Amino acid sequence: MEKKITIAIDAMGGDNSPKKTIEGLSLFLKKNFKNNDFFINLYGDRDKIELELNKFSISKKFLKIVHSSSVISDDETPLTAVKNSKNTSMWNCINSQIKGDADISLSAGNTGVLLVISRMILKMMSQLSKPALAGLWPNKSGMNVVLDLGANIDCDDKNLVEFAELGSALYKSLYPHDKPLVSLLNVGSEEIKGTEILKKAYKELNNLSDENNFIFKGYIEGNKIMDGNTNVIVTDGFTGNIALKTAEGTAKFITDNLKKSLTKNILTKISLIFSYFALKKFKSRLDPRKYNGAIFLGLNGPVVKSHGGTDAIGFYHSINLCYKIVKGNLLEQIRNNLNHLNNDKR
Amino acid sequence: MEKKITIAIDAMGGDNSPKKTIEGLSLFLKKNFKNNDFFINLYGDRDKIELELNKFSISKKFLKIVHSSSVISDDETPLTAVKNSKNTSMWNCINSQIKGDADISLSAGNTGVLLVISRMILKMMSQLSKPALAGLWPNKSGMNVVLDLGANIDCDDKNLVEFAELGSALYKSLYPHDKPLVSLLNVGSEEIKGTEILKKAYKELNNLSDENNFIFKGYIEGNKIMDGNTNVIVTDGFTGNIALKTAEGTAKFITDNLKKSLTKNILTKISLIFSYFALKKFKSRLDPRKYNGAIFLGLNGPVVKSHGGTDAIGFYHSINLCYKIVKGNLLEQIRNNLNHLNNDKR
Repeated sequence: MEKKITIAIDAMGGDNSPKKTIEGLSLFLKKNFKNNDFFINLYGDRDKIELELNKFSISKKFLKIVHSSSVISDDETPLTAVKNSKNTSMWNCINSQIKGDADISLSAGNTGVLLVISRMILKMMSQLSKPALAGLWPNKSGMNVVLDLGANIDCDDKNLVEFAELGSALYKSLYPHDKPLVSLLNVGSEEIKGTEILKKAYKELNNLSDENNFIFKGYIEGNKIMDGNTNVIVTDGFTGNIALKTAEGTAKFITDNLKKSLTKNILTKISLIFSYFALKKFKSRLDPRKYNGAIFLGLNGPVVKSHGGTDAIGFYHSINLCYKIVKGNLLEQIRNNLNHLNNDKR
Repeated sequence: MEKKITIAIDAMGGDNSPKKTIEGLSLFLKKNFKNNDFFINLYGDRDKIELELNKFSISKKFLKIVHSSSVISDDETPLTAVKNSKNTSMWNCINSQIKGDADISLSAGNTGVLLVISRMILKMMSQLSKPALAGLWPNKSGMNVVLDLGANIDCDDKNLVEFAELGSALYKSLYPHDKPLVSLLNVGSEEIKGTEILKKAYKELNNLSDENNFIFKGYIEGNKIMDGNTNVIVTDGFTGNIALKTAEGTAKFITDNLKKSLTKNILTKISLIFSYFALKKFKSRLDPRKYNGAIFLGLNGPVVKSHGGTDAIGFYHSINLCYKIVKGNLLEQIRNNLNHLNNDKR
């Protein structure tokens, strides 16, 4: 029998947990119960978790509860939270990878604490200088990987090149049949544009570009991120964080305005009867829960961070993301790409 | 009689000019012909301009044509374009401020060339180290000023503080009755977040914050830009450019998807009959032509850059922006703010 994909879940992190984490898990189990290739370890308060499992009448065939009495609170400062993190549900969830009990860890808890603990426990891969937080971003033809989204405020050209290798490995684990196209986020598409760091990274990525790992497409501007002509968009954590949040804010502004316009009077309300299904599909396409889950890359084990404020459906998508990442052999893809990076092409 | 507001317009810059520039001017004149307080100088090919003026039966009471035989072409590299720029319509349009013939200059021509020429001719204000490109950004309650949008790739804390003074002066010239609220774009809202440069700028802006010039509100994240709780958003030109373009790309992605959803089948087309006016208003609120015009600040004279690809309506909004800026005494507001900056509060 092949080894099962084991996902460690911090059942207690984020708003409204463990209710939402367990409800999300029940959705995942419903959709995947026929695939006999995974196992779930749940970290947190045994009684509270069992109460929720019973509510959703989840069979324990696919899962195990590992009792962790304490939880990282959102009220603590990151510093004290990290200090007091040992044996919390989050700590145990990450630590299970070291013990060989899991292939990937998932939490909806405090982002800063999760990044620090993950790095402490799993350690950086020795060939890399910085880890990165990668996200999925919808585009015309499917989905981009964008990184770094905020793990590193200052990045040099070496970091950006490593992010390209990490991001394209992630993309290949999610879409095994694609050759990732990689672009570098910049203020213009011409070679002479941008900071010195970007120009150096451009040159190095051009040298590394090959059919077997990724194809470097050059610079991309902010207005082209969603055009679907690239798969992996590389940037420093400061710019990536601001771009992502600006896109979120813009999307919210537009959809709020649209909602207001379409519920304004009796005529527009009648219009909604006729456009109901089309608008539902439109909404579903943009549903941020579908893209829930940022992937922390560059450690000796993958960690996925769910939005703290998401609901059961969003958390379900994060579990599914974990499942796909391990199935696509992310760590092996990263190791291959790091060989590519470290051979003498640079 | 009070001195008239004189606007110098490069009639030849941008796509489809001088047709669109003159049509835009005709819209402006229609809306403002009762205000006997402005005058327009048009720079470009006299014959071509006159042909268009006649098409729109524009009276010459409010304007003068200054013939300029050559035009900066979009095909030239910025370097050769700048070299060959003397006596082009763009050059003459900017230079008219030095000669005392205009209060502000407007062009839809090549951005890079416009920035270089403007700086060569008008020179930096002596108290400042870098100029900035500011834009108008819609929000829930009206409009933000955001700067820098790409004039400077690398900025230090001193630059950011100067941008705050420039941006709040611009805001006051557009909204004379408001006290501008200034925020600094960052990856988090807590004081400890961000780069060293941002932390220094935060401290300095906190010291400069007072009732008479601007009130500093601290950091703002990308997803809050459109919330309407601040008036002036300060960032470096790299981040500002990427945030602006990412917002543009996101808006386009969403509205394209919406359009596709609402024209999909006979039912959705029927729905459009009922929602026609509401959707028209929705579209109008987001119309980028309303926000057309980036303002180049920090020189000894204001210069407005219209989008090259905009149409007559967009160009009309740029002319209107020029008119409001001069009416609101932008240069005087900037000088006041620079006094504020240079007194011993820093």
